[in-house]
Amino acid sequence: MTQQPISETKKKIIEASIYLFNSKGFAGTSVREIANRAKVNIAHISYYFKGKGGLLEYLVSHYYEGYIQTIEENYFQLKYRNAHNVLNKMVLDILNYQHAHRQLSRLVYREVTLDSILIREVMTTYLTKEKYYLQSVIEKGIEEGIFRKGFIPHIIIQLRSLLHMPYLQPQYMSEVLYIQPHETYFVHQYYKELKNWLNSLLLDNQSVEGKLVVSR
Amino acid sequence: MTQQPISETKKKIIEASIYLFNSKGFAGTSVREIANRAKVNIAHISYYFKGKGGLLEYLVSHYYEGYIQTIEENYFQLKYRNAHNVLNKMVLDILNYQHAHRQLSRLVYREVTLDSILIREVMTTYLTKEKYYLQSVIEKGIEEGIFRKGFIPHIIIQLRSLLHMPYLQPQYMSEVLYIQPHETYFVHQYYKELKNWLNSLLLDNQSVEGKLVVSR
Repeated sequence: MTQQPISETKKKIIEASIYLFNSKGFAGTSVREIANRAKVNIAHISYYFKGKGGLLEYLVSHYYEGYIQTIEENYFQLKYRNAHNVLNKMVLDILNYQHAHRQLSRLVYREVTLDSILIREVMTTYLTKEKYYLQSVIEKGIEEGIFRKGFIPHIIIQLRSLLHMPYLQPQYMSEVLYIQPHETYFVHQYYKELKNWLNSLLLDNQSVEGKLVVSR
Repeated sequence: MTQQPISETKKKIIEASIYLFNSKGFAGTSVREIANRAKVNIAHISYYFKGKGGLLEYLVSHYYEGYIQTIEENYFQLKYRNAHNVLNKMVLDILNYQHAHRQLSRLVYREVTLDSILIREVMTTYLTKEKYYLQSVIEKGIEEGIFRKGFIPHIIIQLRSLLHMPYLQPQYMSEVLYIQPHETYFVHQYYKELKNWLNSLLLDNQSVEGKLVVSR
């Protein structure tokens, strides 16, 4: 019970930093600005996160821990369900995860485009795992005769692009396309579109439900 | 002839700034670092670009001028060719444009994810035009009975995601997927994948070439 105020402080720092990193960029934000916005003593940031770099590292790792877990849980379903169903469900779960962490998604996906030691570590730790799971599901689908054969890295690029991009540029979405990606219905609408893309992975003799249709 | 050394200086500043903004971020780069890397006097940066902000503005506008021109030239072909052919060619030309300006593409696409006055202006000036052209081509295709009906803003998100993402994260591409997006063959390989996506826009009774096939 005595820890309650401490984790509250940590939470305030996290929220303030996500906001500031998104509006001013990581390098453009000072530790003092984070402390001011969070209304905490600046010393708390060093205490909890060992400074601004540690804070970013915490945010990125924290995000990817949950992200990879979401993928992994679906991957384990490959034992019980076909690859197309597994991939569909995985896509929906990733969209929901991104929606639940939309401010953080944006920050993380932008940071990943920079060359830095942190990002190299993220790639080795998390993005290699992400690739492994996606690749395994696609390969399984090809083996099962459900998915058409294709160059798997290109399928992965497309899937990740379609999944991540709306969360990377919410400003563009709302100001140019008049779409509100922060609204819950966006997830459902957009998921329908992604299902079309997922269906394009299917072999021509597979119907949308993944049942074999007699080729005419 | 006397202007030759001047434009050479400008070019050096541009190249150095693209490199530094990509590796350290815009806010993380100082005017002095740009001058040092470009091996020019720091006063030249103020003279040509009125400082770091003006330099970024120049880079972003310059990039989008060419980008929009590429789209526009294809859009004008709508008079002579069907929407599917126009969109295919437009996609190939955008990929080639991005390839020719790949360091700058990456910088611009990352900057566009931030909320700033510059980016708001870019959206109003360039991204609204981009949307107009893409939307017009898709609408024309639906009218012509070539494309299936769909929610156009979602088609635009997907198209832009697929086009831009590989250029936004070359590091991920090479270190995780072992794909070299800076190689010329990448454009051709990836274009083939995008053609599959473009074909998914077609109505079921349209063959890949856009010729009407008798529905069975």
